[in-house]
Amino acid sequence: MEKQALLYEGKAKRVYETNDEKIVWIEYKDEATAFNGEKKTTIAGKGKLNNEISALLFEKLREKGIESHFVKKLSETEQLVKNVQIIPLEVVVRNIAAGSLAKRLGMEEGEVLPETIVEFYYKNDDLGDPLLTRDHIRILGLVEETELALLREKGLAVNDVLVPYFKNLNIDLVDFKLEFGIGADGEVMLADEISPDTCRLWDAETGEKLDKDVFRRDLGSLTETYSKLLERLTVAP
Amino acid sequence: MEKQALLYEGKAKRVYETNDEKIVWIEYKDEATAFNGEKKTTIAGKGKLNNEISALLFEKLREKGIESHFVKKLSETEQLVKNVQIIPLEVVVRNIAAGSLAKRLGMEEGEVLPETIVEFYYKNDDLGDPLLTRDHIRILGLVEETELALLREKGLAVNDVLVPYFKNLNIDLVDFKLEFGIGADGEVMLADEISPDTCRLWDAETGEKLDKDVFRRDLGSLTETYSKLLERLTVAP
Ligand SMILES: Nc1ncnc2c1ncn2[C@@H]1O[C@H](COP(=O)(O)OP(=O)(O)O)[C@@H](O)[C@H]1O
Ligand SMILES: Nc1ncnc2c1ncn2[C@@H]1O[C@H](COP(=O)(O)OP(=O)(O)O)[C@@H](O)[C@H]1O
Ligand SMILES: [Mg+2]
Ligand SMILES: [Mg+2]
Repeated sequence: MEKQALLYEGKAKRVYETNDEKIVWIEYKDEATAFNGEKKTTIAGKGKLNNEISALLFEKLREKGIESHFVKKLSETEQLVKNVQIIPLEVVVRNIAAGSLAKRLGMEEGEVLPETIVEFYYKNDDLGDPLLTRDHIRILGLVEETELALLREKGLAVNDVLVPYFKNLNIDLVDFKLEFGIGADGEVMLADEISPDTCRLWDAETGEKLDKDVFRRDLGSLTETYSKLLERLTVAP
Repeated sequence: MEKQALLYEGKAKRVYETNDEKIVWIEYKDEATAFNGEKKTTIAGKGKLNNEISALLFEKLREKGIESHFVKKLSETEQLVKNVQIIPLEVVVRNIAAGSLAKRLGMEEGEVLPETIVEFYYKNDDLGDPLLTRDHIRILGLVEETELALLREKGLAVNDVLVPYFKNLNIDLVDFKLEFGIGADGEVMLADEISPDTCRLWDAETGEKLDKDVFRRDLGSLTETYSKLLERLTVAP
């Protein structure tokens, strides 16, 4: 497999063409951003940690029957994934109130939701990734109604695998963001990354934050936090 | 009917008990507010105009088979309405992109939506009336799923009466906000007000704004605008 032209560079990753049009080469960067790019810095080692954690979680999901774009890890900071057309929706699954949900609904951070919810945000940096309702998604023509239901289902299915997986490591999966894409055969596929950048993970005993909130809220060293998380994931049975 | 104790005072109206527990006495105030109360001023004559317009629109709806809390106009600034328990949801119906929708979705103001949409906002000043999804409404326990569907239907039914009514006066009904309440017998009833404070109305020819946006955006005299609107409504066949 050959790494070819840069296709696009995002806030956290670079995506390169390969000699196989069905495969892209992803490089995880050391950039950390928050608040729609307002807060931004380089953190040596971050790319390596997220590449490793993301690969590990995609493998865990595959083991449990949930397919994704993940093909294989190439190096410390690189992985091969299936080339998809990303659906411009961030699918957010929430088990516990935190962040923007707690603020929006006036809930305490940490309040366990009466049921798991799924939210859709418009993946559009210029608009600040706004929350969308079903009606908004329909008039924007982003996805069909049935596809939207499928995204919701797939989000909940990922949650059903990851919650017990983390729980077993004494970690609460508070919420996470997924992206999906359309594969070469038109199938809807889990894509992008699943990492402490895109999940909220709290130590079930101490409540310690094991995710990007340590960066967003200046609670400590991001690499130390992500390293400790990775350690807990890799000693897992 | 006797006006008794003040039950509550809102930004635009005062609500009084009467000697009939099923009826409340509403007084429209001369207060104008915008941006969640940030912009605020007194405009002599506003209460009278909104009381009159609201009464007229509730009567128009009743004529077309849509019941509401409206009982009768009492004076220039007062009306009697059925006492309901207000559901803390603002039901917003939109035909044309404007205001927060245009901003949220990156649309031009004036773009006709491919279909009429209904949005729900949490009626909660402390939280700034946030947009809610179905999942949010469910976890907040605000209304049952079937009741939510009913609110949507009722919103669209009001739209189906008001759009042609205004169109006949050469006015485009861009969007509007409704509130509903639970009546004495548990029935869901249209309540609150329907006025240029709660609708966006544009002259179909000139695009001139005939609603509270003239106040929000400092486009001219509110009372002149509302008076001209009332005139157009009262010469209607
Ligand atoms: N399998 C894939 N095929 C094509 N593009 C992908 C795939 N997985 C993720 N992407 C996209 O790669 C881009 C770079 O990722 P990232 O740096 O996280 O971007 P962003 O700044 O949008 O968060 C994003 O647009 C992301 O959606
Ligand atoms: N039929 C009704 N019975 C009881 N309360 C009502 C009725 N219609 C409207 N209300 C409520 O009267 C209050 C005063 O109205 P308003 O000044 O518009 O309040 P707000 O500041 O919340 O917009 C609001 O809480 C409104 O929901
Ligand atoms: Mg990203
Ligand atoms: Mg009001």
